[in-house]
Amino acid sequence: MGIEIERKFLVRGEDWKAWPAQLLSQGYLSRDPARTVRVRIAGDAAFLTIKGQSVGASRAEFEYPIPVDDAVALLSLCEGPRVEKLRRVIPYAGMQWEVDEFLGENAGLVVAELELLHADQGFECPPWVGAEVTDDLRYFNSALAAHPFSRW
Amino acid sequence: MGIEIERKFLVRGEDWKAWPAQLLSQGYLSRDPARTVRVRIAGDAAFLTIKGQSVGASRAEFEYPIPVDDAVALLSLCEGPRVEKLRRVIPYAGMQWEVDEFLGENAGLVVAELELLHADQGFECPPWVGAEVTDDLRYFNSALAAHPFSRW
Repeated sequence: MGIEIERKFLVRGEDWKAWPAQLLSQGYLSRDPARTVRVRIAGDAAFLTIKGQSVGASRAEFEYPIPVDDAVALLSLCEGPRVEKLRRVIPYAGMQWEVDEFLGENAGLVVAELELLHADQGFECPPWVGAEVTDDLRYFNSALAAHPFSRW
Repeated sequence: MGIEIERKFLVRGEDWKAWPAQLLSQGYLSRDPARTVRVRIAGDAAFLTIKGQSVGASRAEFEYPIPVDDAVALLSLCEGPRVEKLRRVIPYAGMQWEVDEFLGENAGLVVAELELLHADQGFECPPWVGAEVTDDLRYFNSALAAHPFSRW
């Protein structure tokens, strides 16, 4: 178990596109914000991830590696459409930013996430980082599975 | 991944009580019958188990061992009260019967389960086995978490 402390921002421009991308495909066995259960395939790896209720930027997180074959079968059990995105990990000022370019029904949405060690940790924003959306529930990936960006 | 093929029966009398029991404590991150997600502590082991929709006595099942400390924390994220029961594994006529004596809000309910290799497999019932309840959704453990036996 761990506590995930994460801040989330909209992304501007296209400068982040130069970095290599990995395709993530994920679905939800539970989209309840108090207990989301996510199935994710990332290349040749797969994970089952449980997250608790968000309190500000913090959230309990439990992640277990599972066989990719299991993940494929579990995705077919998931609620609603799956979420697909290209993830780029971009270092900036000593931090690792994760830039997610959403595909499919969420195409057009690009979000940057920054994982912190504690909630009031300072950091420097790259020039392509826009408005913060950490507290906006619509940007939760579990919410994007139910209410994709194209239908906002 | 596997397919769980299981038949479930009510239990009569007390002859099954002579067998040793193990305490199981479990809760649900999802009680949706199409995708239940169960957290279970069984002695010094713990498991995360996902089951799909039942089709007759069959159901897709995925089970992963997890650290007991994680399971304790995950149980606190679960929906509704947890289900506690004493499980006895009782051999009879070449099969392993699992007899679950429910505790807490489900006290008074005793159910026997028999896992089969295929749906039309024959078997002999012990004398303490009563009516079959395989298709009665009320006896799903995920349903017992929401609507315990004491409130039927």
